[in-house]
Amino acid sequence: MSLLVVGSIAYDTIETPVAKRENVLGGSAPYFAYAAGFFCPVQMVGVVGADWLPEYTEMFRKQGVDTSGIEIVPDGKTFRWSGKYHENMNDRDTVETHLNVLGTFEPKLPEDFRRAQFVFLANCAPSTCLAALEQVQGADLVVADTMNLWINTTRSDLDALMKQINGLVINDSEAKMLTGEINTVAAARKILPMGPQFVIVKKGEHGAMFVSEYETYIVPAFPMESVVDPTGAGDSFAAGLMGYIVSQQGRLDAETIKNAMLYGTVVASFGIEGFGFDRYKEIARADIDARREAFREMTAF
Amino acid sequence: MSLLVVGSIAYDTIETPVAKRENVLGGSAPYFAYAAGFFCPVQMVGVVGADWLPEYTEMFRKQGVDTSGIEIVPDGKTFRWSGKYHENMNDRDTVETHLNVLGTFEPKLPEDFRRAQFVFLANCAPSTCLAALEQVQGADLVVADTMNLWINTTRSDLDALMKQINGLVINDSEAKMLTGEINTVAAARKILPMGPQFVIVKKGEHGAMFVSEYETYIVPAFPMESVVDPTGAGDSFAAGLMGYIVSQQGRLDAETIKNAMLYGTVVASFGIEGFGFDRYKEIARADIDARREAFREMTAF
Repeated sequence: MSLLVVGSIAYDTIETPVAKRENVLGGSAPYFAYAAGFFCPVQMVGVVGADWLPEYTEMFRKQGVDTSGIEIVPDGKTFRWSGKYHENMNDRDTVETHLNVLGTFEPKLPEDFRRAQFVFLANCAPSTCLAALEQVQGADLVVADTMNLWINTTRSDLDALMKQINGLVINDSEAKMLTGEINTVAAARKILPMGPQFVIVKKGEHGAMFVSEYETYIVPAFPMESVVDPTGAGDSFAAGLMGYIVSQQGRLDAETIKNAMLYGTVVASFGIEGFGFDRYKEIARADIDARREAFREMTAF
Repeated sequence: MSLLVVGSIAYDTIETPVAKRENVLGGSAPYFAYAAGFFCPVQMVGVVGADWLPEYTEMFRKQGVDTSGIEIVPDGKTFRWSGKYHENMNDRDTVETHLNVLGTFEPKLPEDFRRAQFVFLANCAPSTCLAALEQVQGADLVVADTMNLWINTTRSDLDALMKQINGLVINDSEAKMLTGEINTVAAARKILPMGPQFVIVKKGEHGAMFVSEYETYIVPAFPMESVVDPTGAGDSFAAGLMGYIVSQQGRLDAETIKNAMLYGTVVASFGIEGFGFDRYKEIARADIDARREAFREMTAF
């Protein structure tokens, strides 16, 4: 059973209060795919330019990610994003965005990707998500992420997308923006009638909340004394969450959902300990399970 | 086994985005004492003026609070605080403060209060806390709260107090102010060498964290769709926490601490559903236990 992800692939330039790194691999699909690879086979769909490095294809292959859905545009350049984090490591400013090949991306799913049972539409234009979803036949579970940009600029596409997904993963501030509510719980509840059967609100260093019509589950964040690079934390959270659900055959009972949120939290906590994928490359599933146990000790009542 | 609390007693004027109430009972000691009364007998020490209403004495007596430590200054007026909450219900501005009788308060503990095993020094001047503590012989557990005012204006008294307490309860932003750290976990760890064996950081709508040399426990806040009046939430949290510990004979094992944080969270969640003490007066211990069970369902992994 594998997990299909469609999203952006980027070269990021990241500046934190203590360091700066240029042209490191980033984007929603890579973070999601690599982190989900700790749990299940992953199929990745995205677009890159001629500047794509074969070593990245190899890195994903080793992690159990099928990269045959990555389109390489021979005369194009990969999407570039640069951002600068504030001292609190929670807020950041986007310094530059060059869409490059992402600007005209039309996802084309390989034949065997079209029978995916589990789909994650990582942060990319809602029209791109919709175009990808049209090619998938009869998925059991479709979850999407979104962001302020799409809420503000392509709201009708986003509304159409929300009617076709089972779950939405969204930031606290974006849930409030999407609904006009100032309370997180109220915002999550107001999203449900827009389409998804469940909403997972990511609150960064304050944890996450799952809300469906009859259920509410909450998980605090793993306590971190220092953060090196928060880029990709939301995608990695979604990856641990979805990866665990897939490893449980897509069950959505209370225990599975709560454990999935725990895994999402723990996976994200590793990611932000290093720049880009540095920390992920050092760990194995056993490290994730060990931290999950430590986290359970801190939170289990 | 009873629990001694020393703190401010106030008449508050509270304005929220939807309502305004004038001269409602408030202050750290009343919120703490009433909420702790759901768990164990409480002894309250504080000062009021001639404007103190006998109905409040009766209200506390019914809740199991011994009010013989409340000094009534016949020619004085009770401390008054007025504040205005922002739309997010988390931030507030102090509009006015009239110390009145609190300005010259010298706590005098009744004889039977001086043998208290469990002491909570609710938010009041560190010198007042120290003066009260001097009168207590051989307490098993002393926990104090503090605030930005004392961190900024009476730091040496606060430093002296911290050397005499077992635990400190403090807001997220105040923990950062006290230590100069920008990360909550790092701030909590940096407080330990200042004296207390444990620190509990209150993060409002984001829950709370317990940190000692070898332990870290975290609890999210109870998810609330609407908040009527957050005044006293921190004191009520501390009350549920301390009250539960006292009801467990002062044990400080992991299970007791984690359950105590759960109870603190649940007790505070009731308080903010109404103005002042309105909601507390409607509920019984069974309501607290029922919500604690519901909360456990949301968070137990």
